[in-house]
Formats: sequence, structure tokens, C-alpha cells
Amino acid sequence: MYKAIITVRLRPSILDPEGKAIEQALQSLDFSALSGLRVGKYIEMNVEATERDVAEQMVDAACGKLLANPVMEDYSYELHEA
Amino acid sequence: MYKAIITVRLRPSILDPEGKAIEQALQSLDFSALSGLRVGKYIEMNVEATERDVAEQMVDAACGKLLANPVMEDYSYELHEA
Repeated sequence: MYKAIITVRLRPSILDPEGKAIEQALQSLDFSALSGLRVGKYIEMNVEATERDVAEQMVDAACGKLLANPVMEDYSYELHEA
Repeated sequence: MYKAIITVRLRPSILDPEGKAIEQALQSLDFSALSGLRVGKYIEMNVEATERDVAEQMVDAACGKLLANPVMEDYSYELHEA
């Protein structure tokens, strides 16, 4: 079994209103040294597979089909043996 | 300057309805080998500081005050020199 850690991020060219709102909230709390904040998703899940490349294929397919929007988002993942 | 990569996750004891919904959607797409899916936030931002421990303190305070809900969520972060 593997544990997959996936991060899904908006592409750099896509506006991130959620990140902007959080950044403004930080500014109003006097965190003026923090900037360029962007928010993405962090997903973890278990993958039932005996071979690493099978697990990788499965996670990649799940990201491409459901977890990320390929038009607006990039994803990356790590697999850890569990 | 540093780049901070923050992950905010629900504590293990807290139910994650969003993760559950995504997991069910994966099951219905025939990804039956994927389980235990949980969703968190991935946040990246720039930290304007010359010393690492100053940057660390700032990120830690921002997480505790705004980015994470200390009752329901755990956070962790990495700092990379940029």
C-alpha cells in the first residue's frame, strides 16, 4: 500500500481571489512582510497497490480526471510506501 | 527573502465531508483502490526577512492567528531561501 500526497495549485497565470483576500487579511493584522500568497489544495489518500508504477498511474489518472482542473490547475504528487 | 510552503490539515479526529465526497466520486469513476482521502489547504507566500528565525516566527504567527483554526486543524511549514 502507498500513501499519496497530492498538491493542486492554480497555474501562475490564473488570478487567485482567495489568496488575495487572505493576504489582505494578513496585512490588516500587521503582517506586512508577507506577500504573493496563493492557495491550493492538499490531498492525501491511500492507494491499494503492490507496485509503485501501478500506484503512480492510478494517482495520475485520478488527478487528471477529478482532483485537478487541467485548464486552470497544475498538480504534483509524492508516493510513500505505507 | 524566503518562500514559505504551508500545509493546513484537519486533525485526524475531525470528520472531513469534502474528502468523503471526493472519495465517493472517485469510487464511482472506478478508482476503488483509493481510500482514506482527506483534503487540506496548501498555501505558498513570500516572506520578506533577512534571517531565517525571524521568517519562521512570522509564518508561525500567521498560521496560528489566521491561516489555520487551532481547534480543528494542524499546520506545518517549510521555508526555502528565494
